[in-house]
Amino acid sequence: MKTQLKVVFIGSGNLATQLSLAMKKAGVQILQVYSRTEAHAAELAIRLQCSWTTSTEKIRKDADLYIFALKDSALEEAIRTIQPNNALWVHTAGSVPMDIFKGHVDRYGVLYPLQTFSKKRDVDFEHIPFILEATSKADEDILYYLASDLSRTVRFYSSEQRRYLHLSAVFACNFTNHLYDLAGQIITEQGIPQDLLLPLIEETAAKVRDMTPREAQTGPAVRYDQEVIRRQLELLDDPERKELYKRLSDSIHKEFSHE
Amino acid sequence: MKTQLKVVFIGSGNLATQLSLAMKKAGVQILQVYSRTEAHAAELAIRLQCSWTTSTEKIRKDADLYIFALKDSALEEAIRTIQPNNALWVHTAGSVPMDIFKGHVDRYGVLYPLQTFSKKRDVDFEHIPFILEATSKADEDILYYLASDLSRTVRFYSSEQRRYLHLSAVFACNFTNHLYDLAGQIITEQGIPQDLLLPLIEETAAKVRDMTPREAQTGPAVRYDQEVIRRQLELLDDPERKELYKRLSDSIHKEFSHE
Repeated sequence: MKTQLKVVFIGSGNLATQLSLAMKKAGVQILQVYSRTEAHAAELAIRLQCSWTTSTEKIRKDADLYIFALKDSALEEAIRTIQPNNALWVHTAGSVPMDIFKGHVDRYGVLYPLQTFSKKRDVDFEHIPFILEATSKADEDILYYLASDLSRTVRFYSSEQRRYLHLSAVFACNFTNHLYDLAGQIITEQGIPQDLLLPLIEETAAKVRDMTPREAQTGPAVRYDQEVIRRQLELLDDPERKELYKRLSDSIHKEFSHE
Repeated sequence: MKTQLKVVFIGSGNLATQLSLAMKKAGVQILQVYSRTEAHAAELAIRLQCSWTTSTEKIRKDADLYIFALKDSALEEAIRTIQPNNALWVHTAGSVPMDIFKGHVDRYGVLYPLQTFSKKRDVDFEHIPFILEATSKADEDILYYLASDLSRTVRFYSSEQRRYLHLSAVFACNFTNHLYDLAGQIITEQGIPQDLLLPLIEETAAKVRDMTPREAQTGPAVRYDQEVIRRQLELLDDPERKELYKRLSDSIHKEFSHE
């Protein structure tokens, strides 16, 4: 570490957990964890070997950087209840503008890791893109050096661009994972273990390193094989799954009918 | 190879290409490639160092196994135009019942690799599940030994189960890839390169090795963060994308509202 930053984490969820552990490993000094839930605060603080608090008044005032890793809906209130100071305050949310801090503190910004986090699963930060934003060159530099110690991909984008990044992450991750879930259900209902899909899931993801998703597109919808589509729709009893199948097939067909 | 099988390939598309090359590597003797398009037949035959034909009448009669790797809609006609013999005939389609061969030849079956294939990208067959079906124990054994030389995962399922497997593959692969495409479009329209999504795509796929998709589900829909959902919908101008976003979010929410 070039800079021995002192950091307080506000939040103890999946992202706070993974990010704080990665920072500690990179030599950042984590002073304290704040969480409303004592068990969560303590659990993370023990892993970080730092102190914790559940009281906003007891949040330490001597940190260089306050990282708010909370769900979007809790962010505004948390910021307003913590006494302002002259340190750099950042949040980690994709969809929340940087200006949520405006009027409360002078130095603020965003440190958004474009990845999906679970408490149980450690992720390799080296390959996670960090999307940054700050209000001054000096604070941009602080975030840039911090993120560069964690990852090889660090980019500055505006709050508006970050909103679109987050939206696209919902498609590429949350919706995709839901399709894995539906795919698994479809076969487990027929007595087939869902693990059988893993090689296909992995190859589908790996393919788009070599070619664009457009080039990688296969299946009945892109061929517009109406007979297969009709017979697959017959297999779907659930009206919601049927509708999803139709919409996704139509959307694929639409992409390719321009050609 | 335990059995020096002699094989004729009917078809020269993505699957025929990858499967025949893998079989050749495993020691199978590929006698001939048939395709209606001479350029395709020749291209594959040269890679396999075997002969090719575009005439069904010139298909060799001395093979042990005829593999029909054609799109579903072309399968029936191809089968009926080739003179029957006493060898084993199989197709490689997920959604087509084994009985498509019935009444034309006596020995038939299915060899369905559960994977997505592109001509350009070589796949590692070792991890591809092969789903088999045949009408006699002897023919099941032939297919089993052949598939076992290619892959570590070989299973027998009925035509009906295979239909569901194929349907679930459409969700896990074709629809998933389309979501990658939409996700990429959403950010490239904002001047952000779509490559930035690759680590997220890979982690999303990798996660479901460690936990079920259900446990892995994250994002605004599972939290039912209505404010994020509302603001993300605002970003989507295209009515079709908007509708897809809504449907997928509702479907996720529905899964988790039972808890």
